Amino acid sequence: MEGGGGKALVAQGGGPTAVINQSLVGVVLEARKHAQITGVYGAVHGIHGIVEEHLVDLSDLDAGELELVASTPASALLSTRMKPTPEVCARILEVCRAHDVRYFFYIGGNDSADTCRIVQEEAEKTGYALRVLHVPKTVDNDLKVTDHCPGYGSAAKFVAQAFMGANLDNRSLNGVYIGIVMGRHAGFLTAAAALGRNLPDDGPHLVYVPERAFRQDQFVSDVTSVYEKLGRCVVAVSEGIVDADGTPIAEQFTGGEKDAHGNVQLSGTGALGDLLSIWVRSATDIGRVRADTLGYLQRSFAGCVSEVDQAEARRVGEKAVQYAVSEDRPGSVAIRRVGDYAVEYFLTPLDTVARESTSMPDEFINDAGNDVTEAFLNYARPLAGPLYPVARLNAPAVKKILDA
Amino acid sequence: MEGGGGKALVAQGGGPTAVINQSLVGVVLEARKHAQITGVYGAVHGIHGIVEEHLVDLSDLDAGELELVASTPASALLSTRMKPTPEVCARILEVCRAHDVRYFFYIGGNDSADTCRIVQEEAEKTGYALRVLHVPKTVDNDLKVTDHCPGYGSAAKFVAQAFMGANLDNRSLNGVYIGIVMGRHAGFLTAAAALGRNLPDDGPHLVYVPERAFRQDQFVSDVTSVYEKLGRCVVAVSEGIVDADGTPIAEQFTGGEKDAHGNVQLSGTGALGDLLSIWVRSATDIGRVRADTLGYLQRSFAGCVSEVDQAEARRVGEKAVQYAVSEDRPGSVAIRRVGDYAVEYFLTPLDTVARESTSMPDEFINDAGNDVTEAFLNYARPLAGPLYPVARLNAPAVKKILDA
Repeated sequence: MEGGGGKALVAQGGGPTAVINQSLVGVVLEARKHAQITGVYGAVHGIHGIVEEHLVDLSDLDAGELELVASTPASALLSTRMKPTPEVCARILEVCRAHDVRYFFYIGGNDSADTCRIVQEEAEKTGYALRVLHVPKTVDNDLKVTDHCPGYGSAAKFVAQAFMGANLDNRSLNGVYIGIVMGRHAGFLTAAAALGRNLPDDGPHLVYVPERAFRQDQFVSDVTSVYEKLGRCVVAVSEGIVDADGTPIAEQFTGGEKDAHGNVQLSGTGALGDLLSIWVRSATDIGRVRADTLGYLQRSFAGCVSEVDQAEARRVGEKAVQYAVSEDRPGSVAIRRVGDYAVEYFLTPLDTVARESTSMPDEFINDAGNDVTEAFLNYARPLAGPLYPVARLNAPAVKKILDA
Repeated sequence: MEGGGGKALVAQGGGPTAVINQSLVGVVLEARKHAQITGVYGAVHGIHGIVEEHLVDLSDLDAGELELVASTPASALLSTRMKPTPEVCARILEVCRAHDVRYFFYIGGNDSADTCRIVQEEAEKTGYALRVLHVPKTVDNDLKVTDHCPGYGSAAKFVAQAFMGANLDNRSLNGVYIGIVMGRHAGFLTAAAALGRNLPDDGPHLVYVPERAFRQDQFVSDVTSVYEKLGRCVVAVSEGIVDADGTPIAEQFTGGEKDAHGNVQLSGTGALGDLLSIWVRSATDIGRVRADTLGYLQRSFAGCVSEVDQAEARRVGEKAVQYAVSEDRPGSVAIRRVGDYAVEYFLTPLDTVARESTSMPDEFINDAGNDVTEAFLNYARPLAGPLYPVARLNAPAVKKILDA
């Protein structure tokens, strides 16, 4: 790279995850090892902090304190959903120039990758030597190219353990339990609800993802059928389920609030779960119907982390720095699965990850569109890691005396 | 006790907790040690299983397998909300007589204690020597007499760690976050949201419990005031909050479904959170308002247990058996706090615990009715035990160059 080095700037964008600070600390500690990198700055609230020139100096922070930050959920540098307009990008470059920033690491999802892409292009247009690296994170697991995305494994573990508990709770008191899981266009996180199933009658008994059109009549019929067999039914539903026209089922109930990227609000409301409850109640005579929306706990609960996810989140941060220093090109760090379970890392061009998202492949969803397949479970199990062990009471029946 | 011993019967009633099976296993393993107890039966689905003569034999179960069950959340013997009518009680006695059951251990809340009371009275009336012991459990912590109730500590830890994460998440992206917590009449569990606060600006910034009348205008004004100061606001709200007339705020939105004990459904719906969101949105210009209802995860999430709670839940099960064998009276096992932190156990008459519930003492709630006090934190801290450690990034600001 021209210019012979300079400072590194790191920022976090979009929704937080339980391990996003592993990536941050990975960038910071790795950057300090390279002579080309003369200092490490952090931007507060993502690119919003760059625009405001609101930067902090991470160059000399104590490594022990950084480790405590690494294991803390949610973005330690704070986040933003600011859209990278041409004015914003021009300003980002101006701030980078002023502070001699030559490496920019942006930890985020596909919106953040798009910001990376635009900033990189603008830098090249203006002849400013800046190396922009995207460090992947999402709980939705919807980034293209990479086998999976840091942040997903820990959220998957949370969802799996939530449904393990919900299944046992539902078994205790029967009825129908509907749990709404995050995931706007991709069903990976909802599908993870199935990871906690041990016995044949364990829930979730039904899993609905945004990749298949959701039909009210089919849903009610599926629930009724499970309930008739087991006397209970646990259902995992993605917040992003859509009807046959592709319209989100939740859309009409949210007041239509949209974020800076034009996305309709799905999280932070219990409306979808309540709607599905009403559908079951009104079409059946099932007395006990309950809906939970797992909400922000999925991505930020303090104390539920997948160790594999934690390690990989650290590694993508470190790798981003190594690529920035050793390879003369921008890009997004991606993961390739090379064994069961083993991975390697590689750099993919920013435009292969930016903006667009991916969703579950057909082989992960059953034909009826109401459950996941063994292929999905094999894919996701190593990412969530070992789950909390649970056991049922297996006791012999006592012979009836009165009703013998 | 007359009759010289006989079988023990154990059952679980009401909503499950994360440690209710510790009490079950405590009863089973302790009962096996006493020669007076000739066998240990379990009733499936609480008193419903007794009425149906649906019993299982726990006498010879492997202790190692029982330990796995002990650490599993939700009632391993399954539960019920069946009301003990005179017919039900007569049938319970009939089944106990038929199977030579002389000790009945019922693990549950105040409804279950009431069942114990009625069954004990009926046994005495009919001259059948039956010793009925109530083993306390609730996540609400609303039982009378006892200092606190097994099940509460683990739920409190879950709620505290949920709000620790929610606080960090809210700090990342700002706005208002409202988390709805279980607790029909008692605010103990909602108050536990405050246990995770470390720094002065950590949320929850506001805590609303059912012990104080909830006023819409005061709520909006409180939220606005915090938001103006911090640019964000995290609120913990009990599902059971009531207006000045004592009417639950949630009541008009639940369709009025009631359980067997005549209680309105509060859990399993996101309606209250959504209502409070609307109140904030409509009265302020705050753009980002999110509400989560923590739901059944609070009592059944697999993998979040307080060690103190776990140990005490085991101990109340063991103690119940010891009292049944050594003391010639029925009762409910209660906990007395004798140190910081140390407890002792005692037996309290069933009618001191049955039916009625308790709520937070005044000294646990601040004068404004929108937060908890230090006295509450000191009370609850040892019950939830150590929380997941989190840390903020403390980095020096970079001097501005462009906007200097």
